[in-house]
Amino acid sequence: MSESIKRVVLAYSGGLDTSVILKWLQTRYGCEVVTFTADLGQGEELEPARAKAELMGIKPEHIFIDDLREEFVRDFVFPMMRANARYEGDYLLGTSIARPLISKRLVEIAKQTGADAVAHGATGKGNDQVRFELSCYALNPDIKVIAPWREWDLTSRTALIDFAEKHQIPVPKDKRGESPFSTDANLLHTSSEGKVLEDPWEETPDYVYSRTVNPEDAPDAPEYVTIDFERGDGVALNGQAMSPATLLAALNDLGRKHGIGRLDLVENRFVGMKSRGMYETPGGEIYARAHRGIESITLDRGAAHLKDELMPKYAELIYNGFWFAPEREMLQAAIDHSQEKVSGTVRLKLYKGSVAVVGRKSPHSLYSERHVTFEDDAGAYDQKDAAGFIKLNALRLKLLAKRDR
Amino acid sequence: MSESIKRVVLAYSGGLDTSVILKWLQTRYGCEVVTFTADLGQGEELEPARAKAELMGIKPEHIFIDDLREEFVRDFVFPMMRANARYEGDYLLGTSIARPLISKRLVEIAKQTGADAVAHGATGKGNDQVRFELSCYALNPDIKVIAPWREWDLTSRTALIDFAEKHQIPVPKDKRGESPFSTDANLLHTSSEGKVLEDPWEETPDYVYSRTVNPEDAPDAPEYVTIDFERGDGVALNGQAMSPATLLAALNDLGRKHGIGRLDLVENRFVGMKSRGMYETPGGEIYARAHRGIESITLDRGAAHLKDELMPKYAELIYNGFWFAPEREMLQAAIDHSQEKVSGTVRLKLYKGSVAVVGRKSPHSLYSERHVTFEDDAGAYDQKDAAGFIKLNALRLKLLAKRDR
Amino acid sequence: MSESIKRVVLAYSGGLDTSVILKWLQTRYGCEVVTFTADLGQGEELEPARAKAELMGIKPEHIFIDDLREEFVRDFVFPMMRANARYEGDYLLGTSIARPLISKRLVEIAKQTGADAVAHGATGKGNDQVRFELSCYALNPDIKVIAPWREWDLTSRTALIDFAEKHQIPVPKDKRGESPFSTDANLLHTSSEGKVLEDPWEETPDYVYSRTVNPEDAPDAPEYVTIDFERGDGVALNGQAMSPATLLAALNDLGRKHGIGRLDLVENRFVGMKSRGMYETPGGEIYARAHRGIESITLDRGAAHLKDELMPKYAELIYNGFWFAPEREMLQAAIDHSQEKVSGTVRLKLYKGSVAVVGRKSPHSLYSERHVTFEDDAGAYDQKDAAGFIKLNALRLKLLAKRDR
Amino acid sequence: MSESIKRVVLAYSGGLDTSVILKWLQTRYGCEVVTFTADLGQGEELEPARAKAELMGIKPEHIFIDDLREEFVRDFVFPMMRANARYEGDYLLGTSIARPLISKRLVEIAKQTGADAVAHGATGKGNDQVRFELSCYALNPDIKVIAPWREWDLTSRTALIDFAEKHQIPVPKDKRGESPFSTDANLLHTSSEGKVLEDPWEETPDYVYSRTVNPEDAPDAPEYVTIDFERGDGVALNGQAMSPATLLAALNDLGRKHGIGRLDLVENRFVGMKSRGMYETPGGEIYARAHRGIESITLDRGAAHLKDELMPKYAELIYNGFWFAPEREMLQAAIDHSQEKVSGTVRLKLYKGSVAVVGRKSPHSLYSERHVTFEDDAGAYDQKDAAGFIKLNALRLKLLAKRDR
Repeated sequence: MSESIKRVVLAYSGGLDTSVILKWLQTRYGCEVVTFTADLGQGEELEPARAKAELMGIKPEHIFIDDLREEFVRDFVFPMMRANARYEGDYLLGTSIARPLISKRLVEIAKQTGADAVAHGATGKGNDQVRFELSCYALNPDIKVIAPWREWDLTSRTALIDFAEKHQIPVPKDKRGESPFSTDANLLHTSSEGKVLEDPWEETPDYVYSRTVNPEDAPDAPEYVTIDFERGDGVALNGQAMSPATLLAALNDLGRKHGIGRLDLVENRFVGMKSRGMYETPGGEIYARAHRGIESITLDRGAAHLKDELMPKYAELIYNGFWFAPEREMLQAAIDHSQEKVSGTVRLKLYKGSVAVVGRKSPHSLYSERHVTFEDDAGAYDQKDAAGFIKLNALRLKLLAKRDR
Repeated sequence: MSESIKRVVLAYSGGLDTSVILKWLQTRYGCEVVTFTADLGQGEELEPARAKAELMGIKPEHIFIDDLREEFVRDFVFPMMRANARYEGDYLLGTSIARPLISKRLVEIAKQTGADAVAHGATGKGNDQVRFELSCYALNPDIKVIAPWREWDLTSRTALIDFAEKHQIPVPKDKRGESPFSTDANLLHTSSEGKVLEDPWEETPDYVYSRTVNPEDAPDAPEYVTIDFERGDGVALNGQAMSPATLLAALNDLGRKHGIGRLDLVENRFVGMKSRGMYETPGGEIYARAHRGIESITLDRGAAHLKDELMPKYAELIYNGFWFAPEREMLQAAIDHSQEKVSGTVRLKLYKGSVAVVGRKSPHSLYSERHVTFEDDAGAYDQKDAAGFIKLNALRLKLLAKRDR
Repeated sequence: MSESIKRVVLAYSGGLDTSVILKWLQTRYGCEVVTFTADLGQGEELEPARAKAELMGIKPEHIFIDDLREEFVRDFVFPMMRANARYEGDYLLGTSIARPLISKRLVEIAKQTGADAVAHGATGKGNDQVRFELSCYALNPDIKVIAPWREWDLTSRTALIDFAEKHQIPVPKDKRGESPFSTDANLLHTSSEGKVLEDPWEETPDYVYSRTVNPEDAPDAPEYVTIDFERGDGVALNGQAMSPATLLAALNDLGRKHGIGRLDLVENRFVGMKSRGMYETPGGEIYARAHRGIESITLDRGAAHLKDELMPKYAELIYNGFWFAPEREMLQAAIDHSQEKVSGTVRLKLYKGSVAVVGRKSPHSLYSERHVTFEDDAGAYDQKDAAGFIKLNALRLKLLAKRDR
Repeated sequence: MSESIKRVVLAYSGGLDTSVILKWLQTRYGCEVVTFTADLGQGEELEPARAKAELMGIKPEHIFIDDLREEFVRDFVFPMMRANARYEGDYLLGTSIARPLISKRLVEIAKQTGADAVAHGATGKGNDQVRFELSCYALNPDIKVIAPWREWDLTSRTALIDFAEKHQIPVPKDKRGESPFSTDANLLHTSSEGKVLEDPWEETPDYVYSRTVNPEDAPDAPEYVTIDFERGDGVALNGQAMSPATLLAALNDLGRKHGIGRLDLVENRFVGMKSRGMYETPGGEIYARAHRGIESITLDRGAAHLKDELMPKYAELIYNGFWFAPEREMLQAAIDHSQEKVSGTVRLKLYKGSVAVVGRKSPHSLYSERHVTFEDDAGAYDQKDAAGFIKLNALRLKLLAKRDR
């Protein structure tokens, strides 16, 4: 990327790495930098980022700090949850789902500030570079994307710190030693990779977890909660109406307390390697189970099974960074179509790391006690119908058996 | 079914219901009855069934009592577990997977004894009638299948008990009152439906569970175990080699102790209605998680994702009774092809109702610490490759964006 | 079906079979009959049906004759064509797609006339009974459906004709001999089954075809036509704007002339048996190819491939009668979402039975000559990007190969 | 790719481009070159390639000329045809399926000659580079692959010819002018891209076709042929047993004569752009239709529909170069499992560009005239069974309708 850059919008956390990137962009490209810091619920103060950016010479009007929490949950997390998306059977896509929103804002701010490029701090080995860049290109095909980790020669921790010191970037004491875990956090989850986690036979040490108590330290009594859904989205906790982000935050508190949503996974990255990650998705895990619970009584079998068949592909698209691709949108259209009547209440039991659906009710329930009962059903169902049903389902198998015996 | 029947093989448990069926077959069809009682690990004495059958006039050479536990786990449960099959996201198919084996033996015994029909005790509302009959017809297209619950007029509990008393069939005291839960048990699971469970808003009362302790009563300390796999199948527990059925039984003991594998589900039956069931699959739940764990380091992404996409259909086929259908066999061929290198060891933590994979290792591991490390990778991976990878993945999205802006 | 029926709406063609059914309904159920005759473009006079119905005592206000051609093509054929639906690789679903519309009108007329039942003339062996009944039940779960062919004892041609003569129903001379082909016709296609076609080794005799000339008798010179599409639907032929039904009719004329759209197929019925059918879909075949042609330049790969993957299931749903099922509607939502930019012009060559796309253009084309050219592309595409693209796509295969050598 | 190369195996056609590559490899890398020329049925003399290679200093023992026709058809084309694979609905994958075999031989010869690299003549814009390289890496993860078109600076036709002349490489007269079509040929097909074809609105001129007569010049009388299949593969033409390659060659002659297998397509390349190609697959088109014909009477519905659902993904994998990936092998295992009874005879009519199945018969036919007949079926099928079949299929739709009205 030797082309000239006039102005670049940087996804800026205020931390050491993106501060180094900020300075490197100024030095390497001689360009103006616009910083963008998003509040996605990661639980950190954001105002310090403003001060640091100013210190590094960023104009006040070029410092963007946005609270995106409601948009994040409403327009990204909840649509994904409607699909019951889990990558490789388990991962709730907490990092993957945040990248398209950050990219969207990067591109918007670039337009607003007349920038011709955006930059991110993701490395060249991971999925996030792909997610950022596919999203940015899909939203503005002419944007330039700078990925310093793929370009620069600061390939060791020491080189990075030397660069920082040389440029008067403050280096926190705890960053001086060996490289930390690679972590990501937002309202949906916290993830960690690297270091001791790199041996998939070693159990994740407890100190790696930050969002949940150890289940063994969770309360000895279970707690029951209810979540209300309307048209596929959560709207209330224990009967109290809440906005999307408020609801997820409240579920996070519950999940933290009961040690829910820890996941230790070896997964397949889009770039072709396996990695081992630790995820904590306390509120997301509760929400995901509740959503399946309300679907179980409000979705018809045909809709439910189609959703299950489409899910792995949908989750893979989000994981790989194709949120803004037409096939993701097509799948979303199908999924959203199914959620019209997914309304009602789910009751859950939270206890020492586990969450179980224990009750579900809905004004739109398709469950018919009259049909299913072992007692007299007053003619709702004629058992003799089953004979013909089985006969015709068996016909092709009988013809096969006659041929092949 | 007014045709004449000469001899019928009855799936006979020795309990009240199948004893009534036995007598009803003798009475209604005037035919000879052959009884078949299978030990699938349901945990009941089977010899009493012999005595009862003899009492009802069955010839000794027409009484079959088979121990099918090893065949059940080796040829049915394990192949299904290779697919990571879960119906509607959760159900481990404990009842569904037993029916094809029972049907296979019914048809074999019919051939051996010259019987022209088989009979089962499943009702006309459920899935089991379909599973039994599709399997029997697929194995012998000329067999006649008698389903007394769809034919007779014993439609109330009272009528059934009157019939029993009229024919000197002993009625246990606990069967005199209202109808019991409808249950099914084998080495893989125990299920219950009916009665209080018929209201999906009501939590399943603890007395319904019989195979697991309540998580709240489980040990306060977690327990760690290892399972070894070879070519996709479990072969050892804590380093000790075990046959398939022995391994599953040992896992059941562990699961029982730690309250693992309870599931409360509203599911969609093949016959078109929703039902609410309670399942306990203690060892199966542990095994299923372990299998995914070993796959996570030994299966390539392409194989793993294809399996995830095929799984919902595979599970649906088993649930609906199509074990002996060519499409299930085709899927099995694909799945089994993937398991060649699925060998190694998984370490699990069992604690108060939950089971978590905490470590996995394999001589065939595809996990490459050298590739994934955040540290210096000695040239294993060139981060610059990612730029081209992203550019070409983005190309179609850029062309779309250029068109649509 | 021994229940009492007050008033029934009969799908009435005016032919011998449905006239017998009309009389049989009056006789068997003692109920009032409402007749419904639909013009779906089958190319027959419909007013004689009115006269016949009146002769059989139907009240004038209970005789419904509707021209449904535009609705048929606009709301059923075109949406299906957006999916490129072909059952078992070839069949364009001409009969299957008409049944939901007829059912919809039956249910509407039942409501309008206060009828409690509907009746159709489909036999108990075919797919049409399923399609009619699933559609009717999905639209009105309380409706009763009478299927005389499954109920009565007129199981031979002779019995049917005897019944007709006994009740003064005129029997056309050509219906006196052996039973005719079973045929179905509408604006989309004509099908024939039965008789000589029952041996799948025998070539379909030319006299069975009625909608197309034999390709050998078609013009010796090819004819070129253009079809314009807007948002996935055909809107003009050779530049001349046309309504959906008018367009399809004009394409039928072209297809007839050039012998296009003949299909001889052994297919799998939903009821479990194979049947051999002959189909003529002259305009539909041209339209279907044109639609794929316009999609080839306007759909992104991701959308196109997802459509191809979903298509077999979508086609199966329509074939099996599940037009009004939620999973068909979900798939339709996904498909329709993709058609936003499927606009432009396709040029086709028609010649002696074949139709080929020879040109396509669109204001929304995604085809970029600049990118694809073998000549100098002025930097649109950097060939070096391909190296990284391939390297990362290869990574998992390399890791596999290293493990398995 | 600045690493040192000792010896490289080049896929060498003997034409101008690969001769230039040969010389460039010697010059650029100072390495020894091994040439590999494959006879895949492209219809060219191969011995001239030997003479040219010798002229350019290749040692006789380093010149490999292999007749791979039987292996190509038996182990690549036929397995793919078992899947009824067509990319994007139409393309029979003639180029895609040859690349893995060439790659396999490149890697084998590299091993045999102690070469550390292979080289191919595919450009950086197309699919073939991906197919070659993914296959080579999957077969030998340590092999180096050199793709001169992505490396050198011979980016114009003139530069290429200058290089040739400077190095005494003979330049045929017809190669001096503008660049020719990009073509590929083997026993399965011939493809052309580029030049006039780059405008997708322009009809492909007749002179582009080389393997088939224009349908308008084909015989005025149709020709009927039969193909016999055994276990999914063609084994005889018109009753005469033939090897795989012999059969395909004979079908090519028939297809050429009748103008069969021309295809004009805009397709989506793996590298992200659309391209327009012209394909001639005369024998392959006949074979593909015949294979579906024999499957139509020998495959059960479950197997047939599963194959149809899996096909798009299978075709995409081959198109994208993943022949040697585990997921392709898994799908192949499923497909091959289905072909056990796919034996019998198909009769086809060839006429002026079209090929139609007109008859099929098999000792393993599942078609049952007795079941399907409109005449008396002697009790093979009880029409009343259909009532129960429909009722239970309708049940979930009725419950939906009751809820939603």
